[in-house]
Amino acid sequence: VPIAPAQDLFFTDPSTQHVAMLVYPGMTLLDLVGPHTCFAALGMTLHLVWKTLDPIVTDSGVTITPTTSFADCPQELEILFVGGSSKTTSAMVQDAQTMQFLRSRAQTAKLVTSVCTGSIILGGAGLLQGYRATSHWTVRDQLRIVGAIPVDARYVQDRNRITGAGVTSGIDFGLRIVEKLSGRTIAESTQLAIEYAPDPPFNAGSPDTAPWVATGIVLAAWLPQVEEGKKVLEQARANF
Amino acid sequence: VPIAPAQDLFFTDPSTQHVAMLVYPGMTLLDLVGPHTCFAALGMTLHLVWKTLDPIVTDSGVTITPTTSFADCPQELEILFVGGSSKTTSAMVQDAQTMQFLRSRAQTAKLVTSVCTGSIILGGAGLLQGYRATSHWTVRDQLRIVGAIPVDARYVQDRNRITGAGVTSGIDFGLRIVEKLSGRTIAESTQLAIEYAPDPPFNAGSPDTAPWVATGIVLAAWLPQVEEGKKVLEQARANF
Repeated sequence: VPIAPAQDLFFTDPSTQHVAMLVYPGMTLLDLVGPHTCFAALGMTLHLVWKTLDPIVTDSGVTITPTTSFADCPQELEILFVGGSSKTTSAMVQDAQTMQFLRSRAQTAKLVTSVCTGSIILGGAGLLQGYRATSHWTVRDQLRIVGAIPVDARYVQDRNRITGAGVTSGIDFGLRIVEKLSGRTIAESTQLAIEYAPDPPFNAGSPDTAPWVATGIVLAAWLPQVEEGKKVLEQARANF
Repeated sequence: VPIAPAQDLFFTDPSTQHVAMLVYPGMTLLDLVGPHTCFAALGMTLHLVWKTLDPIVTDSGVTITPTTSFADCPQELEILFVGGSSKTTSAMVQDAQTMQFLRSRAQTAKLVTSVCTGSIILGGAGLLQGYRATSHWTVRDQLRIVGAIPVDARYVQDRNRITGAGVTSGIDFGLRIVEKLSGRTIAESTQLAIEYAPDPPFNAGSPDTAPWVATGIVLAAWLPQVEEGKKVLEQARANF
């Protein structure tokens, strides 16, 4: 149930406004679902876009179904969104069809956005050159490889590029975009609807505050793909 | 990629431990995905359970696929989990097959848990009689109808019943359950992996702090189903 229309209520039926959110095998579902839940409050038409409409298995094992193929995705978008992955970020950067789709829609999208390693995918497509951006803390510095300026922040806007930090930042990101499109009252209503009064059990959500052993556990689990990611971005850069 | 096994590492392969998470048409996907992302870090076998394996459309329009039918769901569970819905909570309470499934697995599950209006569904099955519990703020008081003791808290444990408040509380809930099963360091590592250092744009996540106009907008949008929900719980109570 949309609780509020996007800002153009008095000029445009919000369902004629389109949002395209990339979905792909191995994606981190929570990166997508935070923003999707916020955007759904606005009544815009939300597309989950992929090459085909075949179901996709996400990194935690939940299977979701795309709604719209690359070919059928509208060219004119209010928002282009790319979420991240703990497994297949590099595979997306190396996927020519996905890179071509993102470059195509980014030309005309009003907002080009990401959460988590989605900014690595946007960067791999050459879409963050000269832009300030953030990403998951484990790979944020890699944004330099593709010409972006990494910023240690949970939410970064530079012109029409908006990037969020890791996974759960997508909720903060989604609410800020709702504010941008429909104003503060609707964003506050959305925050209240999803009862977002966070109460984390520990102060461990950032490497600045987490115990070193927690940081070590995460880095050890992800080191091979973080290293592989650097090489993949260097190759991508060569194609810009 | 599981970053850590559940506590019984030295005694049990965690993949032999089962978690059943109810999925159903109209469910709120974020209620499920917060806890699912946390639980996935533990390496246990996660089941998305429903009557059949046919894809399900959630309330924001994302289609997901169940993994396990009610009939095939293991009887012995580490965790039984029920998320909420902005649309179909009452429909679930009125669904005899779902009520029967939940009562059956709750008899032997180590933890019987919910997020958001999932506690209304557990309550409707008679599973919260005499237990302290929480729910989405719009319906929390309705828990009294089915014999539970409503508590104004984001996370409530009473014996083996653990309930979370609305939608996004599922992340706090998930991390606390990870701590319970695998200890603080693994929970902190999970929090860091999902970069859960929340930074809400407004202080509007609870009716205690939100502007009255935001509270009014949410209540106005949901009032008919909140009222309907009371009647449905009263009918359910008659069947206990």
